[in-house]
Amino acid sequence: MLTFWGDLREDLARVEEEIRRVVAGAPPPLREAALHLLAAGGKRLRPALALLCAHFGRYSLERVLPLAAAVELIHMATLVHDDVIDGAEMRRGIPTVHARWGPETAIKVGDVLFAQAIELVSSYEDSAVARKLAATCLSMCTGEFAQERESYSPQQSVWRYFRRIRRKTALFIGAACELGARVCEAPLVVCQALRQYGLALGMAFQVVDDVLDLVAEERVLGKVVGGDIRQGIATLPVIYAWSRSKKGRRLKEILCMRGKSEAEVQEAIAIVREAGGIGFSLEVARAFAAKALRFLRPLPAIPQRRRLEQIAEFVITRSF
Amino acid sequence: MLTFWGDLREDLARVEEEIRRVVAGAPPPLREAALHLLAAGGKRLRPALALLCAHFGRYSLERVLPLAAAVELIHMATLVHDDVIDGAEMRRGIPTVHARWGPETAIKVGDVLFAQAIELVSSYEDSAVARKLAATCLSMCTGEFAQERESYSPQQSVWRYFRRIRRKTALFIGAACELGARVCEAPLVVCQALRQYGLALGMAFQVVDDVLDLVAEERVLGKVVGGDIRQGIATLPVIYAWSRSKKGRRLKEILCMRGKSEAEVQEAIAIVREAGGIGFSLEVARAFAAKALRFLRPLPAIPQRRRLEQIAEFVITRSF
Repeated sequence: MLTFWGDLREDLARVEEEIRRVVAGAPPPLREAALHLLAAGGKRLRPALALLCAHFGRYSLERVLPLAAAVELIHMATLVHDDVIDGAEMRRGIPTVHARWGPETAIKVGDVLFAQAIELVSSYEDSAVARKLAATCLSMCTGEFAQERESYSPQQSVWRYFRRIRRKTALFIGAACELGARVCEAPLVVCQALRQYGLALGMAFQVVDDVLDLVAEERVLGKVVGGDIRQGIATLPVIYAWSRSKKGRRLKEILCMRGKSEAEVQEAIAIVREAGGIGFSLEVARAFAAKALRFLRPLPAIPQRRRLEQIAEFVITRSF
Repeated sequence: MLTFWGDLREDLARVEEEIRRVVAGAPPPLREAALHLLAAGGKRLRPALALLCAHFGRYSLERVLPLAAAVELIHMATLVHDDVIDGAEMRRGIPTVHARWGPETAIKVGDVLFAQAIELVSSYEDSAVARKLAATCLSMCTGEFAQERESYSPQQSVWRYFRRIRRKTALFIGAACELGARVCEAPLVVCQALRQYGLALGMAFQVVDDVLDLVAEERVLGKVVGGDIRQGIATLPVIYAWSRSKKGRRLKEILCMRGKSEAEVQEAIAIVREAGGIGFSLEVARAFAAKALRFLRPLPAIPQRRRLEQIAEFVITRSF
């Protein structure tokens, strides 16, 4: 993945090093589990955004480094706790921490990563950095929780879906952008525009993620396809399909079943595809990406603005 | 318990209110679980210490309030995660969050409480407050983890025990004291002395806690007696007894068994008592309390200093 980031590669490698340094400070078995998580890789989207947005201020890698490492650490912490909650066995093609070391270790690893992230961002004199990140973490918990609560329910709607992914994903991506600019002292209006860009980008990103959960190749995705349907989570393509398809009732029925068969999951995916749920959702993702681009337009035309535009384009065309 | 705190009662009630306000901001099912946790009560030792230590600076309740609420929120967060990890059913005489709402909710509640605490302390301009608290949380995780790793092992030693409880309990109590003074701008040497006081107090507190786990009445303790032995955790009285008693080998054998019977737990407790493990440990706790008092001596003789002395005396005489 790192190759995608072009000239950002070197700075991202420093972020990776910083994360490794921090994680290596954890006690032995936690360290092992956290390094396993780190080695599993990932797109490093959030630190990359923080670095790029920092260029809208007086860029200094040293300055933005704690934030860039912290946003990835928090992201890792949420993944590890979510995997315990969902009982997920695989992530990015390798066993989850919870599957390999048990839920006790996974809970502790998440706590440690989160505390390490807060320690990092509290190195800024500007305490708003830690405050805004903590507030975003709260939103993420709220979003995750709403998802659990609403799962297996036929009441799931497009508006609840949007609210949920905004909290679960978009606000945090928006914060990575805003704070990257903020720690390098970009003007306030620029920070706010970048936050809006990140928010819209995050919405696009999550909609695509939810599409990929239905149609990706498992080999590429690194986890089992149809996970959301299995867990009773109605994502945008599903909600679209159940209100449009004449097989909508059947789709709803399958989604709300606990303990559905593999054949039922495949049947549900087929209904969603037939009804055009995939195409519709990608259309929505494109609209969010276009919105993200609009927030960039008034910003200074530095090379990093072009990179942010490319990310918005990548997010809606990616296959993993 | 609040009556114990005398003239501190009113300010502590404000802290309680602040915690309730914060917790009530959580999404509905988490809110319910967090309020259940809050209603279960507790000694509120950490916020009380923060308030008292704040008097060594220019005391202002408004000023110290976020910190005092945050230290209790973090304490609650660690309890709720530890209960999941330990599979504990009861705490303070009522079912744990994990027993009543399931581990998923308990993990999320802990995450939310921690994030809320960080958000609160990031309201201080001085970002060292959040940083020091986050660092202490890391130590707590390390201590808890060491406890898990060392459990059921016959290698547990007094020195490992001290290192463990320092991390698990004492450093955080030290931080509550130090930061209470710091946010009200007490002189640096005073903050440091209060940190040392809190550290020694925390050591005394945890040693007594471990004694109570063996000898308290369950009705008063609010949880099952002998829990540490059941979980293979060698606390000070046990380590003392197994190196002194001629039944030491049997004690070690029982401790290191997984799935021991109730009779075996009682047999182990009897060996510890006979060997004088209880008396020795209380002696150690008294020594720590005396050390705590010594750190107070050079401090200004304000009424709150007397209250801190009383807490050190209470900690070693308490029965719950």
